[in-house]
Amino acid sequence: MLLAGLLAVSLVWGQQQVKVVYHLSEGTVQAAQALGNIRNHFNADPSVKIVVVTHGPGIDFLLDGATTPKGQAFTGAISELAGRGVEFRVCNNTLVGRHISKDKVAMEAQIVPSGVAEVARLQAREGFAYLRP
Amino acid sequence: MLLAGLLAVSLVWGQQQVKVVYHLSEGTVQAAQALGNIRNHFNADPSVKIVVVTHGPGIDFLLDGATTPKGQAFTGAISELAGRGVEFRVCNNTLVGRHISKDKVAMEAQIVPSGVAEVARLQAREGFAYLRP
Amino acid sequence: MLLAGLLAVSLVWGQQQVKVVYHLSEGTVQAAQALGNIRNHFNADPSVKIVVVTHGPGIDFLLDGATTPKGQAFTGAISELAGRGVEFRVCNNTLVGRHISKDKVAMEAQIVPSGVAEVARLQAREGFAYLRP
Repeated sequence: MLLAGLLAVSLVWGQQQVKVVYHLSEGTVQAAQALGNIRNHFNADPSVKIVVVTHGPGIDFLLDGATTPKGQAFTGAISELAGRGVEFRVCNNTLVGRHISKDKVAMEAQIVPSGVAEVARLQAREGFAYLRP
Repeated sequence: MLLAGLLAVSLVWGQQQVKVVYHLSEGTVQAAQALGNIRNHFNADPSVKIVVVTHGPGIDFLLDGATTPKGQAFTGAISELAGRGVEFRVCNNTLVGRHISKDKVAMEAQIVPSGVAEVARLQAREGFAYLRP
Repeated sequence: MLLAGLLAVSLVWGQQQVKVVYHLSEGTVQAAQALGNIRNHFNADPSVKIVVVTHGPGIDFLLDGATTPKGQAFTGAISELAGRGVEFRVCNNTLVGRHISKDKVAMEAQIVPSGVAEVARLQAREGFAYLRP
C-alpha cells in the first residue's frame, strides 16, 4: 500500500501538465521581460499551463494604453498569449488602492480579490509551480 | 488503490489551510510593501498561515528602531500581525555576519540558523507555498 | 487506504533530501550574493540538493572571465560548489539571443533549452522548492 501511495504520487507528478504561476508586481519593465520569458517557456514546453498573477505596479501592462519600455503597445502580446491559453489575473486591492476603474483593465484579464492570495492559492490548492521573472 | 492514493493527495491539497512563506531579503522598502501585502492576504483568506523569513537586509525592519520609508515605526504592524498568527524568522548568519546583537531583534521574531535553508525547509518539509514580495 | 496514502505523502515529504532551485536572472551582483547564500545553506543543511538555473543576465557569472562586483573571479566559487554537488544550468535561449558561444560557458554548467521551463519543471516534476536570491 505504501508502494501504491508512492506510485500515485509519482503518477501525479509525472503525467500531469506542468502548471506555473508567473508573479508580477514590479511594472512594465518586468512585464515586458516576463512576456518574452513566457514565449520561450511555450517553445520549450508547449503543453505548459501559465497563469500570470499581477498586483501593485505589476498590473500596469494590463491597463489601457500600456506600452513597453520601447514604446510598443502590450495589447498584441497579451491577446497572442491569451490565445495560447495564458490567463492574466489582476488584484482588486490594487485597483481600489490606486483608484483605477475596472474598465481600464484589458478584457483578457480576470480580476481577483487579492493577487498575493491568488499566488498562494494556485500553489497550495492547484499544484502550480512558482516563478518570479 | 491508485484512486485511494489520488484521493489522499487531493485531500491533503484541498482541505488543509493554505500555508505560505514570504521571503524578504531586500530592506525596509520591500518589508513595508510586504506587510501591506500580508494584510491584504488575510482579508482575502483569513485562515492562511504566513511565515515571514528574513535574511540580509531583509531583517532590517525587525531591528530596534526600524522605520518605514515614510518614517513610521514598524513595531505596531509587527505586533498586530504577530497577534494574527504571522511568524517572523531572522537569519542567524546575517546577525553574525553583520555583527548585530540578538538583543536588537524584535521580540516577536524567532532566530533560525539560516534564512535560505528555512525558506527551502518550509516548502519541502511543511508544504508551504512561496512568495517573494 | 486513505491512511496509507497520507502516510506515503508524509514519508515523501519527511524523509527525502530537501531539493531547491535557485533562480538567477539578474546579473553578477545577484549571483555573488546567491553563492554566499548557497554556502550558508550547506552549512545549515549539508544534505541539501541545489540546482542553480540561470537565464538573461543571470548567466553572466558563468561566462569566461566573469568577476564579482569586488573584482574577484567567480571560477573558484563555482568549482568549489560544483564539487559539493551544486549543479549550474544555463538557458540556451539566452545564449542564442545574446549571441554568446557555448565555448564561453563554464565547464561546470549544463546548457538547457529554456531557463524558465527548467525552473518550472524542477518544481512540478522533481519536487524542488523555489528560491529567488
